[in-house]
Amino acid sequence: MNISPEKPLGNPMIVGVMGGADVDPTVLKNAHELGMRIAREGWVLLNGGRNAGVMNASAQGAREAGGIVVGILPDNHCRQMSPYVTIPIVTGMGSARNAVNALSSHVVVACPGGPGTISEIALALKAGRCVILLDFELRGIFERAEQEGRLRQAKTPRAVIEIIRSEVS
Amino acid sequence: MNISPEKPLGNPMIVGVMGGADVDPTVLKNAHELGMRIAREGWVLLNGGRNAGVMNASAQGAREAGGIVVGILPDNHCRQMSPYVTIPIVTGMGSARNAVNALSSHVVVACPGGPGTISEIALALKAGRCVILLDFELRGIFERAEQEGRLRQAKTPRAVIEIIRSEVS
Amino acid sequence: MNISPEKPLGNPMIVGVMGGADVDPTVLKNAHELGMRIAREGWVLLNGGRNAGVMNASAQGAREAGGIVVGILPDNHCRQMSPYVTIPIVTGMGSARNAVNALSSHVVVACPGGPGTISEIALALKAGRCVILLDFELRGIFERAEQEGRLRQAKTPRAVIEIIRSEVS
Amino acid sequence: MNISPEKPLGNPMIVGVMGGADVDPTVLKNAHELGMRIAREGWVLLNGGRNAGVMNASAQGAREAGGIVVGILPDNHCRQMSPYVTIPIVTGMGSARNAVNALSSHVVVACPGGPGTISEIALALKAGRCVILLDFELRGIFERAEQEGRLRQAKTPRAVIEIIRSEVS
Repeated sequence: MNISPEKPLGNPMIVGVMGGADVDPTVLKNAHELGMRIAREGWVLLNGGRNAGVMNASAQGAREAGGIVVGILPDNHCRQMSPYVTIPIVTGMGSARNAVNALSSHVVVACPGGPGTISEIALALKAGRCVILLDFELRGIFERAEQEGRLRQAKTPRAVIEIIRSEVS
Repeated sequence: MNISPEKPLGNPMIVGVMGGADVDPTVLKNAHELGMRIAREGWVLLNGGRNAGVMNASAQGAREAGGIVVGILPDNHCRQMSPYVTIPIVTGMGSARNAVNALSSHVVVACPGGPGTISEIALALKAGRCVILLDFELRGIFERAEQEGRLRQAKTPRAVIEIIRSEVS
Repeated sequence: MNISPEKPLGNPMIVGVMGGADVDPTVLKNAHELGMRIAREGWVLLNGGRNAGVMNASAQGAREAGGIVVGILPDNHCRQMSPYVTIPIVTGMGSARNAVNALSSHVVVACPGGPGTISEIALALKAGRCVILLDFELRGIFERAEQEGRLRQAKTPRAVIEIIRSEVS
Repeated sequence: MNISPEKPLGNPMIVGVMGGADVDPTVLKNAHELGMRIAREGWVLLNGGRNAGVMNASAQGAREAGGIVVGILPDNHCRQMSPYVTIPIVTGMGSARNAVNALSSHVVVACPGGPGTISEIALALKAGRCVILLDFELRGIFERAEQEGRLRQAKTPRAVIEIIRSEVS
């Protein structure tokens, strides 16, 4: 795993945070803490921008820690946007915007979720991005990426940050 | 599983065929036979349009049986298009076109493949489409769709056709 | 103007027909006749697929003459699709699909329309396509394309067909 | 013209700046000054993100005045990005990203340019956005938008800012 080549020098690191809209409280708690920790590193948080689940919780955490949140919205309006998004990108492209989420992130962290989240993990791996699964079990379906070290596991938000830090420096 | 609601009456059934660009000979053989069988039903085959793997093999099968093949290309040109595509849709959108593949198919058949294929399965399920896995094992990661009967398994191309037929009629 | 380089040998010519959703009866009449003439040449007609204006009229003309109509829909469903579309491509991308219309057409014919139509002309020229204006006046804003012979004028559907024929052969 | 309805309260105003990649020095000078003035208002500048023409000049102006620049890139990489972009959105969608530029801007300013720029003006008007032309003459082709007050003219960057200010307050 090597994150640097994709990131222009002088630009902030952009960490994509993906995950379900309808998830357990533990997942939300992790997403919130992850958002805080990303912001404290001075990194930009990028997510799907909606006012639900992991998107909203991670955005809230980042904003509470003084960070910047880029929300890549599927809709052609902002009516279902998380109030914690700083910069909304209004795509009007539905799930096709998942590919933009993947390409625009230097590294992707995936919290538990359904087909939408799995599509984002798959698109990120396809685009050559590194993906860190936060307490999310995919049963080895992305075997090759795991072998190449581009798909990693973490049990806590803190462990996610440590993996990213170790790969960037 | 119920395919009909998405298909306007009087239009041909469009069957999406997804799968890897770099796959085993058995997978190619199945993709080719699947393409033939889809064409013989009078259905349109839709795939990613490139001159590789499951895309090319399924297109070849369909054309050899006199069918129509719609290829949704990721590139902004036709230089890597399968010669068996009848109607190329040139998106220039890279993997964001995977969402178009899913939405444009009344039902999706997935042959074995990597992250690109898995993203298409996930996007199809997210869009409410039915997905039939042809000799492809996903270890239960789309548990809810399986329970709802929207993710089905088939061992042979013939079995795929039977599943689609039984759901349409 | 030279259309051939973009079209793979052995594939049917795909003619994009753009134009407004809310237009005068004369424009609809021209669009309908244009659709008929395109179909009679054995060419595929591609348009925005909706059940309105130039889209619907040109699709109707093509279908009545036995042709194939590809409709690139902005919606993520077919509920506002022209009944004359043979093959709907469901993009779910709103106006971003205008770029797909342009790229997927070997040549674009533009009937009168508003900003949506002008965006399609502009995207087609940007993508290197030739554009024929059918009784539509753009007051020279695409001056360079006119000088290069990539933006042409026609007064009748018959004249459009003659321009395309002369460029292909 | 009324900009507010599209902008969530508490979010910064996002001003899209469009224009050609290959333009006269006067146009570049205006784009640079416009970028500075946008940043001084505390607004975010959004553009196409490439290292050329109006995109690069406006980004440079905004950064020199301490502003934030969002660059919506057509490529699937950052190799041709303006060094003055703060937050790159990597779409990999080519000109289809022009629709995202339009939707993501609360108001669009268009400097002189070719078909790409005209497509962005058209897509912005189609999406209901207000467009201000900075020393760019379109010969009345968007007549209805002019009559509705959604397409305005300005001779200087200062006049652009004044128009936006008067519409927001």
